[in-house]
Amino acid sequence: MTDSLSRAYAERLDAADPLAGFRSRFVVPDEDLRYLDGNSLGRLPRATVDRLATVATEEWGRGLVRSWSDWITLSRRVGDLIAAEIVGARPGEVVVSDSTTVNLYKLAAAALDARPGRTVVLGTADDFPTDRYVLQGLCEARGLTLRGVPTDIDSGVSAEDVRSALDSSVALVVLSQVAYRSGALADLPAITAAAHSAGALVLWDLSHSGGSVPVGLTAAGADLAVGCTYKYLNGGPGAPAYLYVRRELQEGLRQPVQGWFGAADQFGMAERYVPAPGIDRFLVGTPPVVAVAAVEEGVRLLAEAGVDRLRTKGMAMTSYLLSLADAWLAPLGFRLASPRDPARRGSHITLAHPRAWQVCQALLDRGVVPDYRTPSRLRLGPAPLTTRYVDVWEAMTVVREVVACGAHLSYPAVPGRVT
Amino acid sequence: MTDSLSRAYAERLDAADPLAGFRSRFVVPDEDLRYLDGNSLGRLPRATVDRLATVATEEWGRGLVRSWSDWITLSRRVGDLIAAEIVGARPGEVVVSDSTTVNLYKLAAAALDARPGRTVVLGTADDFPTDRYVLQGLCEARGLTLRGVPTDIDSGVSAEDVRSALDSSVALVVLSQVAYRSGALADLPAITAAAHSAGALVLWDLSHSGGSVPVGLTAAGADLAVGCTYKYLNGGPGAPAYLYVRRELQEGLRQPVQGWFGAADQFGMAERYVPAPGIDRFLVGTPPVVAVAAVEEGVRLLAEAGVDRLRTKGMAMTSYLLSLADAWLAPLGFRLASPRDPARRGSHITLAHPRAWQVCQALLDRGVVPDYRTPSRLRLGPAPLTTRYVDVWEAMTVVREVVACGAHLSYPAVPGRVT
Repeated sequence: MTDSLSRAYAERLDAADPLAGFRSRFVVPDEDLRYLDGNSLGRLPRATVDRLATVATEEWGRGLVRSWSDWITLSRRVGDLIAAEIVGARPGEVVVSDSTTVNLYKLAAAALDARPGRTVVLGTADDFPTDRYVLQGLCEARGLTLRGVPTDIDSGVSAEDVRSALDSSVALVVLSQVAYRSGALADLPAITAAAHSAGALVLWDLSHSGGSVPVGLTAAGADLAVGCTYKYLNGGPGAPAYLYVRRELQEGLRQPVQGWFGAADQFGMAERYVPAPGIDRFLVGTPPVVAVAAVEEGVRLLAEAGVDRLRTKGMAMTSYLLSLADAWLAPLGFRLASPRDPARRGSHITLAHPRAWQVCQALLDRGVVPDYRTPSRLRLGPAPLTTRYVDVWEAMTVVREVVACGAHLSYPAVPGRVT
Repeated sequence: MTDSLSRAYAERLDAADPLAGFRSRFVVPDEDLRYLDGNSLGRLPRATVDRLATVATEEWGRGLVRSWSDWITLSRRVGDLIAAEIVGARPGEVVVSDSTTVNLYKLAAAALDARPGRTVVLGTADDFPTDRYVLQGLCEARGLTLRGVPTDIDSGVSAEDVRSALDSSVALVVLSQVAYRSGALADLPAITAAAHSAGALVLWDLSHSGGSVPVGLTAAGADLAVGCTYKYLNGGPGAPAYLYVRRELQEGLRQPVQGWFGAADQFGMAERYVPAPGIDRFLVGTPPVVAVAAVEEGVRLLAEAGVDRLRTKGMAMTSYLLSLADAWLAPLGFRLASPRDPARRGSHITLAHPRAWQVCQALLDRGVVPDYRTPSRLRLGPAPLTTRYVDVWEAMTVVREVVACGAHLSYPAVPGRVT
């Protein structure tokens, strides 16, 4: 056993970690829980507990309907914070609204309306189910073809793959920047440029990249994006999502779900719907204020840490995890199902094992929280803001012990649980 | 001044009110605030403060992603509670999801798909803006006609009006059971029957009726409904909405926003979207758990009080308010803009006055919270669960004083605020 496989080594990494202090900003009731599912549901910031109480008791309980004078801009305020700190966009380009799926629907529909005559939507067969389902529905309703870029589920989609699949029939390209299963990082600038060369619009799903890797939407000239706030942004279970529309496109796009929060003169309550100027036209109904406020607290912590530092730690920590997996788990039948190059992946690592579901259940019973993904994959997401190197070390030790002694074999082989 | 106009009379009404005890179940930091906007934003239940803390600290903070084993059924659980206690529907017919607007869009689109060849959607030009905007968008996208049932904005829509506007070209009728402005109560069973006679489906917006009047969806054979939870249900600002689909229609309908929470095998993550059986197919993305949990607490209080008792008090209290308005405000230029018969209105009363906006601002500065609605209307919603008769008495006293002495004239005449 070399030194780099020892617990002491993990402790030294923690001691040298410039982000180590952030863990104390979160509610961690069980220091011994090895939580490697931060890419599914981020931890609860301490500030959020207070914020929820304040929004409820002071703003709702005391202020009542009068608090709308402040709440009315909340979705946009949090959107601007996400724009500046998480996705590299300009003020007025991001807003918090609805679920990721509803936002995907709104933006994809708006984009398809903006490319009449083009008959193809380009995606991948490996994208997160909700993305594929939304596009299937839109394509069926409009008689369009949903074309899959050929990809490998463990190494993701390359700019070259996308370029080959593009032609003048493609209206819209929809891809995840970081693949939900493998963690593979797509080349957002190159793919955006390729789509534009073909005259297509591009819609990025940032659910697994926002808060874990620099996104750089404006720098890349990206058209549209959506993202989830309950993973790396620590907004809470099912927290409202965000959407981005490049400023120059906003006035030319019109989304299909016309609601009063997206109307030009909301309180004039005009007879006809006229879309609001700017990003507001992509809003729909009254936003869930309590939930949006929680998102703001999560994003503030990310902003304080800085995406660049999170990225640095994310690469270091997944590389560390992988070194343990190579040493301990490869001999036990695990295979890496993520890119080996840290520059080519986000902040999670996926390991394939024929009995991954059973391993998952055994780990949960032993204080390790991983995630299971079809087919036969153990997904391990050490969130840079809250996970310690010793957590990774302990977790991998438990995986090794479970599989080495066959403890997982006593668990039933029937999957089913949420990200 | 007759006895019935005295404060002592209001106090006697409070003393005899069987629901009076419920006020103590809510956070009321300012007993002197006369809050008559419960039909815009209901008050904060005390239980909700605790529930938010528990969901955050215990379920999210401690349970983390493992809590999804419980959260996964939350939208349905709260839906079933609303079905049984609020809208008179059967288990598996109601679910909490998205915003009212998004739900309107989903259900209206599903209904239109189910009536191919029919070219008209029937609504009213006086319906809440978001309802009209959603229908405008759907009709434009599909080349359909949005036909308005002729209505009076103060007395609402009659079954006869709807019957006259119906013919075999009508695919869908969309109406509010209680009109957002006048409070006029539509005859839900008669209009539903009329729509069915013409072969049309009917979609009810229950935002202003759910929790204030008995709805009786199943008894009326209603097809579809949506409703808001932040008014009478006290779910919190922008709390997630609910939707209802009659059991017999569920398998035949398909909504356009295909997401993973509406898919048959959510965690199988199948290649193709197959809608889930039952009401789940009307779900879309991951629900905002914290916000849905708050809805549950609000609905539980309503359930405990019972809609019939709330209806009785609602009629009594609005009639009482009206008697004060007749005596004090009619001479000052106020005109009733709601049905006079309590059986023909919900739980709010609207008064028209040329300077309603200015009156509204003056009242806010004097500890009375009313609501302004275009054109020139003061909307007064004494929520039966939390408003005392003395609050109504005090509020009306202030209105009288403000207008009698012209205090409102010093306020600017520029509207703009939220329901």
